[in-house]
Amino acid sequence: MARLSVDIGGELLARACELAAFSEDGAALTRVFLSPEHRRANARVAEWMEAAGMSARIDAIGNVVGRYEGDRPGLPALVLGSHLDTVRDAGMFDGMLGVITAIACVDALARAARRLPFAIEVIGFADEEGVRFGTAMIGSSAVAGSFDRAWLARRDGQGVTMEEALAAYGLDPGAILQAARRRQDIHAYVELHIEQGPVLERQGLPVGIVTSINGVTRLEITVTGRAGHAGTVPMDARQDALAAAAEGVLAVETRCRAEPGIVGTVGMLRASPGAINVIPGAAQFTIDLRSGEDARRRAAVDDVLAAIAAIAARRGVGFRSQVVHELAAAPCAPGLMRQIERAVVAAGIVPFRLSSGAGHDGMTIAAIAPIGMIFVRCAGGISHHPDEAITAADAMAGARVLLGFIENFTPEAAR
Amino acid sequence: MARLSVDIGGELLARACELAAFSEDGAALTRVFLSPEHRRANARVAEWMEAAGMSARIDAIGNVVGRYEGDRPGLPALVLGSHLDTVRDAGMFDGMLGVITAIACVDALARAARRLPFAIEVIGFADEEGVRFGTAMIGSSAVAGSFDRAWLARRDGQGVTMEEALAAYGLDPGAILQAARRRQDIHAYVELHIEQGPVLERQGLPVGIVTSINGVTRLEITVTGRAGHAGTVPMDARQDALAAAAEGVLAVETRCRAEPGIVGTVGMLRASPGAINVIPGAAQFTIDLRSGEDARRRAAVDDVLAAIAAIAARRGVGFRSQVVHELAAAPCAPGLMRQIERAVVAAGIVPFRLSSGAGHDGMTIAAIAPIGMIFVRCAGGISHHPDEAITAADAMAGARVLLGFIENFTPEAAR
Repeated sequence: MARLSVDIGGELLARACELAAFSEDGAALTRVFLSPEHRRANARVAEWMEAAGMSARIDAIGNVVGRYEGDRPGLPALVLGSHLDTVRDAGMFDGMLGVITAIACVDALARAARRLPFAIEVIGFADEEGVRFGTAMIGSSAVAGSFDRAWLARRDGQGVTMEEALAAYGLDPGAILQAARRRQDIHAYVELHIEQGPVLERQGLPVGIVTSINGVTRLEITVTGRAGHAGTVPMDARQDALAAAAEGVLAVETRCRAEPGIVGTVGMLRASPGAINVIPGAAQFTIDLRSGEDARRRAAVDDVLAAIAAIAARRGVGFRSQVVHELAAAPCAPGLMRQIERAVVAAGIVPFRLSSGAGHDGMTIAAIAPIGMIFVRCAGGISHHPDEAITAADAMAGARVLLGFIENFTPEAAR
Repeated sequence: MARLSVDIGGELLARACELAAFSEDGAALTRVFLSPEHRRANARVAEWMEAAGMSARIDAIGNVVGRYEGDRPGLPALVLGSHLDTVRDAGMFDGMLGVITAIACVDALARAARRLPFAIEVIGFADEEGVRFGTAMIGSSAVAGSFDRAWLARRDGQGVTMEEALAAYGLDPGAILQAARRRQDIHAYVELHIEQGPVLERQGLPVGIVTSINGVTRLEITVTGRAGHAGTVPMDARQDALAAAAEGVLAVETRCRAEPGIVGTVGMLRASPGAINVIPGAAQFTIDLRSGEDARRRAAVDDVLAAIAAIAARRGVGFRSQVVHELAAAPCAPGLMRQIERAVVAAGIVPFRLSSGAGHDGMTIAAIAPIGMIFVRCAGGISHHPDEAITAADAMAGARVLLGFIENFTPEAAR
């Protein structure tokens, strides 16, 4: 049997460049759900799929789906893929690399005329970032059967509803259920994606095995003190809401630094009234807290809120907190992690496990199939930015691991 | 000689209420420089001055000036007063109490037919707050001869220049120099004002003797870190600009708490890009640092900047600082403090000295005369707010102290 080859790092990067040209903006990469650029990207990806021996179609939500039959037609599929939409002023690998790499792997099979005891499907998801309608993972939700029909009424920045946008694309908003897949038709879902963080770079490794997509809790904290004249109120007579909030920011950092595998971020902070010569009477800030393990995340949330309560009590200010978003962690299937790990070792790479801090389509697909993820090192951990970069060598390493995994995939050992 | 009396606390409050009706807004008190309300307030104050035995005039900048001759005409004057303009949605005592009280004291002299070996002038300054044209103490600057003619080109929110506003009021913008007073015509300037802070209330005292109007340094600090994905960048790989800024906020508070007589405030803080799921790559905040002693203020500024530099170095973030405003302290004349103190003691009140955290017209008048200030307790230290409040008893205590000071004023011991 011929050894399969995907020694095509340069070609993967060239395809990423080609997709990056499908942008609403000549100077930057921005491609949102159901846009003209989305249609063009889907068309190009479908061509690549067909050139790689797959049948290609656009499903009811606008995902592009390629299918490579197994050693007989109609077998359950190993599903690969990632998303084809982008954030505004995006990098060219976030999402696209997973689709391009999966197609390259199927192409290697097709060129060697290899059929496996399972089908392979590659999905280019229509929306993962949620830029256009403010709700994310629309494409994979439709596949997982969790699309919420209330989303059809959501409007984009121009006032166009999702329903109108689907119709304008030529899709039938009434038929979205047809995009949903049955559990028995899918063995597993495996996604290759750039890491979007600096961990692999710091480890000196081109790829990593994802253990879990982190769960997240997002909170808004409001601190209520007492405004006052910056010149006339002595330090010991103040109830400075911003100083209390500053302690809260540091409490988040201190708690999350103390435990590996947890990250906590205060991304927004606002002081009111917000004048140079007025002691802030109120302050609001957000907390984004993530972990691959839900219990650890919840414990960290509890600790942070207790710390803020203690700060508020000591300073004589009030505070209230509100959970504005919460999503459980999506653990990767141990069986898939083991199978990916074998492919990593076979590629001559030291196996390394890490969790995913960012969300991915696997979080929704986990409802209908075991999920696994392969991360590819990216420069400086930079993502959601035009500076997003990977090397051709790392792209090739990722493709080798994915192909090795596919070749040796054992559906019954997926979970 | 009849004992003079100003046992008229209720009347002082009634006059404050009457002035508060001259507002651009029926629901709130807002009275800005050269507005129709300003004209009406000036007219009413001039009537009160004349009823108290003074000649009254509007000077070239719009200050209302009353003069009570001494035991012969044309003597140098003890100048009393405060301002008649307000912030937006103001309280009714900030500024006005000093004008009303000074008139009441002159009225007591006139009723007793008492002439002193110096003239008394009462000035209701046209602009101290700087609300309309964004530059403060316009009225007292004109009196002190430090009016900057470049201000005439400044525009208000409706695009009207100060020059146009003066002309519309009926004043000659070319004649502003005529408002300037000569040093030899003024023995001293003494202003009674509400404290605008909580110190007297905490001391349980109705009045206090001001030692200095605090100097102030205002800084803008910009911290530059590295933005990143809130989920993917481990805690130990972050250069979080907001976390560094939060430490900076606390460094200001810690330094100023450590030394009585210094106050420091961070009133504004902004994190960029300011998204719930993005590690802030930059943060900006302001510092307002005040002291009655310039050397102590400068030392505190140096210490705070050194602390921020150390925080930035430890965290691997950059920072820069810019002084956006600086004003030296205006010390009150020791001779005036001693004379005011005698009047406080004579009124049966424990003498207590404190510095002024807020700015006052004395800061500009100090260029041409020794200055002194008497503070009157206000409820909760609240000012620049409709809740600003004093008691009739405290208003009366302030008037007694001011009258006692005037009666016994010794020009040659003013400095």
